[in-house]
Amino acid sequence: MKILVSNDDGIDSAGIYSLVEALKEIAEVTVVAPHKEQSAVGHAITMQTPLRVFEYQKDGKFFGYAIDGTPADCVKIGIRNLMPKTPDLVVSGINHGSNTAINIIYSGTVSAAREAAIMDVPSIAISVTSHAVMDFSFSAKIAKQLALEIFEKGLPKGTLLNVNVPNVSQDKIAGIRLTKQGKSKWDDIYEKRVDPYGRNYYWLTGNLFELDYDLEYDQAAVKNNYVSVSPIHFDLTDYKTYLEMKDWKIENLLNGK
Amino acid sequence: MKILVSNDDGIDSAGIYSLVEALKEIAEVTVVAPHKEQSAVGHAITMQTPLRVFEYQKDGKFFGYAIDGTPADCVKIGIRNLMPKTPDLVVSGINHGSNTAINIIYSGTVSAAREAAIMDVPSIAISVTSHAVMDFSFSAKIAKQLALEIFEKGLPKGTLLNVNVPNVSQDKIAGIRLTKQGKSKWDDIYEKRVDPYGRNYYWLTGNLFELDYDLEYDQAAVKNNYVSVSPIHFDLTDYKTYLEMKDWKIENLLNGK
Repeated sequence: MKILVSNDDGIDSAGIYSLVEALKEIAEVTVVAPHKEQSAVGHAITMQTPLRVFEYQKDGKFFGYAIDGTPADCVKIGIRNLMPKTPDLVVSGINHGSNTAINIIYSGTVSAAREAAIMDVPSIAISVTSHAVMDFSFSAKIAKQLALEIFEKGLPKGTLLNVNVPNVSQDKIAGIRLTKQGKSKWDDIYEKRVDPYGRNYYWLTGNLFELDYDLEYDQAAVKNNYVSVSPIHFDLTDYKTYLEMKDWKIENLLNGK
Repeated sequence: MKILVSNDDGIDSAGIYSLVEALKEIAEVTVVAPHKEQSAVGHAITMQTPLRVFEYQKDGKFFGYAIDGTPADCVKIGIRNLMPKTPDLVVSGINHGSNTAINIIYSGTVSAAREAAIMDVPSIAISVTSHAVMDFSFSAKIAKQLALEIFEKGLPKGTLLNVNVPNVSQDKIAGIRLTKQGKSKWDDIYEKRVDPYGRNYYWLTGNLFELDYDLEYDQAAVKNNYVSVSPIHFDLTDYKTYLEMKDWKIENLLNGK
């Protein structure tokens, strides 16, 4: 089996290295990752400028391809140009910081996996809930076992698994749960500051509004020390509202106007 | 009523100007838009660097706030810091180029409207299907009429309307349709080129795989000269796969491993 590995923390991050080590036990791994950190880039792609591809060395050996682009760029160019054959799986991570609830929308880690799903390649995004985490080995094991599950059972076209791992030692893990995207979201605050030249600038901070208490939701699951696994897709149609809006009769919107 | 207007083509684009002119007829309009073009940035937000806010003049008068960030940044800082009160509606556009089917995922125009929906503010993203379009007045009228509909009927929290207008004269418009996100997607091609220093670079191009023929889908509707209106949201959970995956029994993933 062939796996493409990417991330958004950059090709020199500790998380991608642990992930690659674990996945090498079960597959041939090709790394295509951003040259520099690309957190919170969402599903950005590079069209106005070209991409560069660098062969990145680690410990004196070729480790993978570093791209001066976004996570989604890495997956596109990796599958289209850098791998001789379409991979069987794409795994993105291991990300520093959770990608639960609304963070799924902003996440570069998830966008790499989503791009794979768009290209009909099954994929996993995997994140650990702390920016200070040092040991990725448990998360890497989870990624490896889920990869084996996907090799065995497959995933529907267009679906990816978004995995979040609590940052606790393995003996404190409460279990593994199938979850849905939570409703928790950020209460944004822009700190207004003054630069050395007397001009204002604004820096985004904020607090997470915790709106998920049921363990069926990713945010509640990881908060209660469960590994959270959510199947997500990229059909954004709001079917409920679609049906309700039939009553709007928008076909008449411009009548008489 | 108060409306925040943003876009991804930048505050100096013709599309945002036509939109503002039309919406001023029905509401007090505040413009908060990217200083420079931000196409295909997806739902990127700026966290690692601060934002700057510039007061942008047009025809010798204050036109709006220009932000050195993404469309989602503009909506966040506009609602949190620049408007005295949360607006009743956010409208993003009018975009050059359609945002149907898979383009919804990459679009900066849609991400501005989606950010509003995340903040519980109803919103509209509006695009015209051509990059060469010169006259935005019909699209601006559609935006105005839909804004009035939303003022009257409301939208569920978390839902936005993604609107695409064919680039034909008004007499050729076949009608207005309620639609779903289509399945059409890009067949990506990276053109490999050589720079003046002998190094390779890759430029993204591609062709759209047309996979939508039913007028229920946005891409088919605009292709057949209908104005397309799709309700979309940001719950990415794949509920069908969620139910199917109960059989995976992932709670046992690490048993004996």
